Amino acid sequence: MEKEQFEGYKYIEGGVCAAKGFTANGLNCGINPVKEKNDLGMVYSEVPCNTAAVYTKNKVKGAPIIVTQRHLKKSGGISRAVIVNSKNANTCNPNGEEVAEETCRLAAEELGIKPEEVIVASTGVIGMPVYIEPFANYMGELAGGLSVKGNTAAVNAIMTTDTVRKESAVEFLIEGKVCHLGGMAKGSGMIHPDMATTLNFITTDVSVSAEMLQKALSDIVKVTYNCLSVDGDTSTNDMVSVMAGGLAGNSQITSEGESYNIFKQALYIVMLDLVKMLAADGEGASKFIECKCEEAPDTDTAVKAAKSVVSSSLVKCAVFGGDANCGRILCAIGYADIDIDVLKIDVELESSAGKILVCKDGMGLQFSEEDAAKILAQEEIYININLNQGNASARAWGCDLTYDYVKINGDYRS
Amino acid sequence: MEKEQFEGYKYIEGGVCAAKGFTANGLNCGINPVKEKNDLGMVYSEVPCNTAAVYTKNKVKGAPIIVTQRHLKKSGGISRAVIVNSKNANTCNPNGEEVAEETCRLAAEELGIKPEEVIVASTGVIGMPVYIEPFANYMGELAGGLSVKGNTAAVNAIMTTDTVRKESAVEFLIEGKVCHLGGMAKGSGMIHPDMATTLNFITTDVSVSAEMLQKALSDIVKVTYNCLSVDGDTSTNDMVSVMAGGLAGNSQITSEGESYNIFKQALYIVMLDLVKMLAADGEGASKFIECKCEEAPDTDTAVKAAKSVVSSSLVKCAVFGGDANCGRILCAIGYADIDIDVLKIDVELESSAGKILVCKDGMGLQFSEEDAAKILAQEEIYININLNQGNASARAWGCDLTYDYVKINGDYRS
Repeated sequence: MEKEQFEGYKYIEGGVCAAKGFTANGLNCGINPVKEKNDLGMVYSEVPCNTAAVYTKNKVKGAPIIVTQRHLKKSGGISRAVIVNSKNANTCNPNGEEVAEETCRLAAEELGIKPEEVIVASTGVIGMPVYIEPFANYMGELAGGLSVKGNTAAVNAIMTTDTVRKESAVEFLIEGKVCHLGGMAKGSGMIHPDMATTLNFITTDVSVSAEMLQKALSDIVKVTYNCLSVDGDTSTNDMVSVMAGGLAGNSQITSEGESYNIFKQALYIVMLDLVKMLAADGEGASKFIECKCEEAPDTDTAVKAAKSVVSSSLVKCAVFGGDANCGRILCAIGYADIDIDVLKIDVELESSAGKILVCKDGMGLQFSEEDAAKILAQEEIYININLNQGNASARAWGCDLTYDYVKINGDYRS
Repeated sequence: MEKEQFEGYKYIEGGVCAAKGFTANGLNCGINPVKEKNDLGMVYSEVPCNTAAVYTKNKVKGAPIIVTQRHLKKSGGISRAVIVNSKNANTCNPNGEEVAEETCRLAAEELGIKPEEVIVASTGVIGMPVYIEPFANYMGELAGGLSVKGNTAAVNAIMTTDTVRKESAVEFLIEGKVCHLGGMAKGSGMIHPDMATTLNFITTDVSVSAEMLQKALSDIVKVTYNCLSVDGDTSTNDMVSVMAGGLAGNSQITSEGESYNIFKQALYIVMLDLVKMLAADGEGASKFIECKCEEAPDTDTAVKAAKSVVSSSLVKCAVFGGDANCGRILCAIGYADIDIDVLKIDVELESSAGKILVCKDGMGLQFSEEDAAKILAQEEIYININLNQGNASARAWGCDLTYDYVKINGDYRS
């Protein structure tokens, strides 16, 4: 997929290590029996970072979520490291918090920082026993191997059913200072965000207050991560964290204004880029779907309409089968929790093979099935909805529903 | 599947024709090119019927829904016939209401009743052109062939991707009078009710006021049809109607009391039976799933928890794959919109091969994978949740998510 370009921002390599002062590492500590697959990752900042985070709203929460919230409260929103494992979600385990706390303590000891400065996260199977030994045995090697090239090893450690690495980073200027913001994400199934989704760790060298950092993150989650759905299942372990170390040298951003806007846009670009990667790599996906909803009465309506379409199993199957079934798109808009006049809705299907109007004023149109089939045969499908009843717009992202989704999830644990 | 037995109620044959005074018919009028498949059905009552109905909450509504609502308002809640077609949903068509109205006028003319005494319904593809000719050409033959054995021809006419006929009827006594209540339903995909689902027509010879009829229907929809999910997509054409002709000869039920309770229970039994048939025949389903939620703080919580579990794509895939993945069940309870203490939840898996506790106090248990695999290899799977925080309970129904669901819905229109 081609990256969206934004003036003043340049995509760069490095992921979570793109920003000054950050190093990372990853390795196999034995939680995953496949030795070639990393299962434990670490991100470290040489200076204390103002930190913002959003978490899953699932009432069944992974122990690491509870421990991270406790740590950031105790540290006053300051963090210096992330420790994250895959293959075991450390959720619904009687000793989950104990293991998560001890993991942080071990990491802090190796790094010479406080345990409450450690963000801890886990992803994998829910309700499996969890033991401290793998973490204890490998923490020294993990911390000892931290490097500015360690982002790849770290992102490998958080992948589960992901088939591609999800990293993104940009370079930009604030007050003439060169700034960087980058991140890594994991996630392929159990993706239907409510507040945030999957695991996503972002680092930056911009100097920004904890308050403005949280404000930017909360705003941008709404139009990026919360507009993503793979399968309608909101995970128990979702978390997005942003660590801002401040080594770029700009004067600290403490209020809205030009510098805040530049920073917020950088956060948007990286999170948008990661979200699109997550959608394209949804479990079993053969096609990426973007639904754009325009001329809505307000942003909330646009988000709900677009998200309802990309979440519909029937729309997803139709895209998989290359069936230009506009009725299912209208149906999904119709059951979204929004107040709209359905007799004003236009729907267009678009891809690199062209575009075609399939619905006008809420009514199905006759169109060339041959042209529609060509459009839907591509790997990136765009469903463009015009509600014709306002000025707000939003996008949502997802993927098709395929035989492979069923296969992957019929036999996940083994 | 074995039918649930209830004292005082006997299952009988006859579906919509089981009650005195009702006849039915079905035939192929050419909407469906497969001549062996009926696509037009009719149910007729020799006397005027008090009528109750519930409709889809989808804002994109089929024209027949709008016309039926208009008719029942105009007739003061009295109906004498149902006319229903499959293969075309008559939804999102510019001339949809016009065709639905004309269809009712033609039916009324043949039957010698008023157009506003006709309930009209359609199911099939959304947004396809619809023409009056097939209805006009065959209305005489359809009405002419009405018979007390016509229930099979009628239920055949409403089937779409259904693989089995869904009919149910019971016999029972009110004031010593022999009463009957029966119905037919269609539906396989696009099933995630909000208010009602699919098409479902019920007839009875009990004498009951329109008000008490609507009250009974609205109450029972909540614990039957609204607890059913095949794929999370709420259809545009859902409707449940109940016609009560009164020929059983009981004194009219006009308030709550013993007779009302007997009648309401009959309605529950038939709707429950139909709902379980719908779940077992969900598109592509290889397994029926019932989730029972007990000891909830209130019924609404129990319904939402149970429905969230049967709606989860990941739970459905796990059941398909025979994977006793209790984490996904807990996850689905956790993202339901309910206020509960997750640390009190127990989860048990059950089938004809036995039962096994997989979660206690919100924590995953170690269990015999071999025993669990045997249990999940059966065709009827029961997920028993105990919230241990109240006295309310509810059940929800669904099916597994399979390769065939994707296949059927990747190529539905053609």
